[in-house]
Amino acid sequence: MQEGFIKPLSDERRLDWLRLIRCENVGPVVFRQLLERYGSPAAALEALPDLARRAGSKRKIRVCALAEAEAEATAVGKAGAQLVALCEPAYPALLRALDDAPPILCVLGALEALAQPCIGIVGARNASSNGRRMAGRLAADIAEGGFTVASGMARGIDTAAHLGALPRPTVAVVAGGVDVVYPPENESLHAEIQESGAVISEMPLGTVPQARHFPRRNRLISGLSLGVVVVEAAQRSGSLITARFAGDQGREVFAVPGSPLDPRARGCNHLIRDGAFLTESGADVLSQLGTPPAPRGTPEAASRSPEPAPTPAPEPGSAERALIEELLGAEPILVDDILRQSALPIAVVHSVLLELELAGRAERHPGNRFARLYKAPANPL
Amino acid sequence: MQEGFIKPLSDERRLDWLRLIRCENVGPVVFRQLLERYGSPAAALEALPDLARRAGSKRKIRVCALAEAEAEATAVGKAGAQLVALCEPAYPALLRALDDAPPILCVLGALEALAQPCIGIVGARNASSNGRRMAGRLAADIAEGGFTVASGMARGIDTAAHLGALPRPTVAVVAGGVDVVYPPENESLHAEIQESGAVISEMPLGTVPQARHFPRRNRLISGLSLGVVVVEAAQRSGSLITARFAGDQGREVFAVPGSPLDPRARGCNHLIRDGAFLTESGADVLSQLGTPPAPRGTPEAASRSPEPAPTPAPEPGSAERALIEELLGAEPILVDDILRQSALPIAVVHSVLLELELAGRAERHPGNRFARLYKAPANPL
Repeated sequence: MQEGFIKPLSDERRLDWLRLIRCENVGPVVFRQLLERYGSPAAALEALPDLARRAGSKRKIRVCALAEAEAEATAVGKAGAQLVALCEPAYPALLRALDDAPPILCVLGALEALAQPCIGIVGARNASSNGRRMAGRLAADIAEGGFTVASGMARGIDTAAHLGALPRPTVAVVAGGVDVVYPPENESLHAEIQESGAVISEMPLGTVPQARHFPRRNRLISGLSLGVVVVEAAQRSGSLITARFAGDQGREVFAVPGSPLDPRARGCNHLIRDGAFLTESGADVLSQLGTPPAPRGTPEAASRSPEPAPTPAPEPGSAERALIEELLGAEPILVDDILRQSALPIAVVHSVLLELELAGRAERHPGNRFARLYKAPANPL
Repeated sequence: MQEGFIKPLSDERRLDWLRLIRCENVGPVVFRQLLERYGSPAAALEALPDLARRAGSKRKIRVCALAEAEAEATAVGKAGAQLVALCEPAYPALLRALDDAPPILCVLGALEALAQPCIGIVGARNASSNGRRMAGRLAADIAEGGFTVASGMARGIDTAAHLGALPRPTVAVVAGGVDVVYPPENESLHAEIQESGAVISEMPLGTVPQARHFPRRNRLISGLSLGVVVVEAAQRSGSLITARFAGDQGREVFAVPGSPLDPRARGCNHLIRDGAFLTESGADVLSQLGTPPAPRGTPEAASRSPEPAPTPAPEPGSAERALIEELLGAEPILVDDILRQSALPIAVVHSVLLELELAGRAERHPGNRFARLYKAPANPL
């Protein structure tokens, strides 16, 4: 069953999207592969238990029940938020183009804020007073220029960026549920943002943000944005991860320089040395990115639609499955190397990896690499 | 008469060099042209009055008398300083390679300090305390790395750079005479530098530095150096002129970034945006420039020796002279345009321009351009 390209979904169909992404071992990349193979989340949901079993999962894969998804959707409605699926027109176009875009976003506030192209502003939590002033000015100028300022509502630079952008629309991408105010002192900012902008998350309501959630959240900030401005960042900080994501995603990276005597400038100075655009003002950013382009219906977004006709999947035999599993180890290995070393057709390798991932026996790593998960139940293949 | 390539001069021959550069309308470029044409300063001194007369100077050109030069040399000796001609081994090799290197340098202190390759450190006079700290650290690390720190002994960054380099050799290039302490509070720094390093100038002893001397002085700092580090610099500052010279001279330009909220960081940040190397430490500079190379006897220095065999000069006729003079106006014009518009041979055009410059009827401008000097006596050509 094919659901077509970008179009609004009925509540019922949107529940399929929610259910599939809430299934065990289904992340955004697996979701997209299942969609490519089965044509719709509903069809993928049906196929899921069998797929996982094939890869040797003794225990049944936990599929999200319809009632569970309904309960989540009801709670979202009660919280005044909305769910937006990746195929829907309200979904941010730039984000949709990513291979691992979240299939479902939870949006608290004005959906229209997501229609404007964003520019991310991120930086240190323990920002200096100058750094916060800089972030506020940049945000005000960028919002004035017609872009939506995206940030992470963290302490320091993030908070200053949102405050600087207000009352114009600003988007806070949070690591937990959209209803969880974090840090607690941002209670009123959380409320203000919703008036013209939005708080968004890929996590279920009520999720308390944890350290491991932040890198993915950072990836969403850059993914939403045409460019990301880093204001103050120590070395090995989350803001630098966001900048790296931005670079990998083909986004422009901007960095505000600072004195080498200030450790909070270290990260930005290194970004500049590595090619980031040295940024002194919002005008620098605007002149680099031009006027906001129409964010919708671009050929790129259409061509990368997640729901093309389903691709008939090859049925890997157990010998092929064993061969690939043997190539996997605790250390992540490139899919290219698996292809080369196994000498199997690419479609077969992808099928096996997908099944192993669903079965919880393999784990996807950044850079198209896979590692074996030894915590999976032993299986005498 | 040809004096050969790089070799020490007798006191008598060095006086010829001093006399020629102290003649009216003779600057470093004219000096080099005269040397190319006549083979030695002594021969050029003889030809000078006739050359100037040919271009229509009614008044006799003021040639520096031998007694004048002797008096200057005696005073230099009394001040404990030395004169070094461009062709002498003690003359800094990198500086010698410039088209407009001073034919004579006055050196107060240790001549050996000029044998080591230099790295320039320049910046704002009204430097912040952080900026001065940065300059001191950079200078210490660069001196430790085996390079001589060159600067201008001005207030602020320059002073901090010299102090940071001490007790290792450091070279102060001053805009006035080497015996004139400026600013006055640098009395003890002036003395300390001479112990291991040197204070150098192309100006006669006793010259009080004036605004118009500084750009040339800045050009010497960059000309002496493999690279120039700018520490704090407002826009349109002297340090930026030094950086521009450095770039034009093929030297590496380094700049220390700073907060966009600090106007003293504006110039450095713009340099970085324009391609200067973002610099946070002396190690950054050293890793870019490597270990100090042997500064002497490089093929480049030899091939650019100022005293090749004299080139027989064409004798321009008065028609050719009139044609070129007509092409010159108050607005500087490119020599290339003069060549194209006059359709005269290149050697003739250069001869006429040299004569006009000596006669005080034309003035050389940066970028190989010439303008007419209307203050010269009218001449019914």
